[in-house]
Amino acid sequence: MENSKNKKTILVFSGDVDKALAAFVIANGALAMDDEVTMFFAFWGLNILRRPEKVKTKKSFMEAMFAWMMPRGADKLGMSKMNFGGMGAWMMKLMMKQKKVDSIKGMIKTAQEAGARMIVCTMSMDVMGFKEHEFIDGVEFAGVATYLAEASEADVNLFI
Amino acid sequence: MENSKNKKTILVFSGDVDKALAAFVIANGALAMDDEVTMFFAFWGLNILRRPEKVKTKKSFMEAMFAWMMPRGADKLGMSKMNFGGMGAWMMKLMMKQKKVDSIKGMIKTAQEAGARMIVCTMSMDVMGFKEHEFIDGVEFAGVATYLAEASEADVNLFI
Amino acid sequence: MENSKNKKTILVFSGDVDKALAAFVIANGALAMDDEVTMFFAFWGLNILRRPEKVKTKKSFMEAMFAWMMPRGADKLGMSKMNFGGMGAWMMKLMMKQKKVDSIKGMIKTAQEAGARMIVCTMSMDVMGFKEHEFIDGVEFAGVATYLAEASEADVNLFI
Repeated sequence: MENSKNKKTILVFSGDVDKALAAFVIANGALAMDDEVTMFFAFWGLNILRRPEKVKTKKSFMEAMFAWMMPRGADKLGMSKMNFGGMGAWMMKLMMKQKKVDSIKGMIKTAQEAGARMIVCTMSMDVMGFKEHEFIDGVEFAGVATYLAEASEADVNLFI
Repeated sequence: MENSKNKKTILVFSGDVDKALAAFVIANGALAMDDEVTMFFAFWGLNILRRPEKVKTKKSFMEAMFAWMMPRGADKLGMSKMNFGGMGAWMMKLMMKQKKVDSIKGMIKTAQEAGARMIVCTMSMDVMGFKEHEFIDGVEFAGVATYLAEASEADVNLFI
Repeated sequence: MENSKNKKTILVFSGDVDKALAAFVIANGALAMDDEVTMFFAFWGLNILRRPEKVKTKKSFMEAMFAWMMPRGADKLGMSKMNFGGMGAWMMKLMMKQKKVDSIKGMIKTAQEAGARMIVCTMSMDVMGFKEHEFIDGVEFAGVATYLAEASEADVNLFI
């Protein structure tokens, strides 16, 4: 590797607000230390990058059902534990605000501005029936080979 | 390292179908790029490699109860989220089929044929009361020292 | 790296007994092989290191509610699956005992005696409203920058 920068990759499989928080705190921490960061969003992690507004898309019945049941974007995520129908996530967001911790949405913006690569896993998209325009601006679309190429060059790889 | 091949290890702790899918997509992706892959199955991950048929084994009452409550093999796994008593897993398997994504069972076979080492954690086996003949053919049995030796040589290590 | 020792880091995000077991089996395995180990406890993982006894602390209403709802220390953790209101965790602890596997509490002590660094994530503490004296002796307190510095030097990094 001739690159003088260190690289970190995070495979964001989870779509829970607490795990998304962990992923972005690590990502933004690494970016602040001038590392390169690649985040690869797979499966439930796709929900973090969904546009909050309703997007017209042709979907099969099951794809529509899946899309409808899952949270649309970073503001709608639930907790991995003690969610209590959204109550837990609401409490946590309030506590983050009180302690002046940025929201997931804010952290995504910070990461993008600091140059993080955010890649949506195309296979997950395909299986779940998502289309490219259902995701926020600035993300890339690629498969597992791209992830592995990045991960092989990184000195820290996490699956969250 | 004198080995010209890159190595990847995946510690498969989860026994959920969605996480197993992630593990095997990454493993088979790496194998396709001619990497070495070692998968180490611990705890709930053991369920992925259980034989689907009933196997006679001497078990204590609690071991029998544990074994009975847990899914027997790759076809019986549930989802980590939105499982709804198996409905979610069934939907996901259907969607995978529609998109021509191979089943977990098929992916295990592919990985084995491509030379992946699949190791069942002996300590997990012991705690849960599993015996070697309860697992599918072609797997190895070893402990954490073997995992750590493999992981130390790998350039990507994931805990799934 | 001039250090002749290999380093492992484990980011313990989960507070489930089964995942804590995995984390400490790996940590103590690595320590036994004379590796350096840094464990960084974030979010639910904080519960693993809480003092078992009640500790007087000034907390806001929500912090007190959070602290009260979460397990106080390694002996009180639940399972990530099949917990059945603590029944699963109780069964697992019994099975561990029967197979002469040490308890989490015992493994923490072993890890500390073997020189593992155990770091409590200060941001998680802050968001959840924990104070330093609510944690067991011998732990450190630091943020994501410390974690990343350690992880960048390690040859195995896991997020559990």
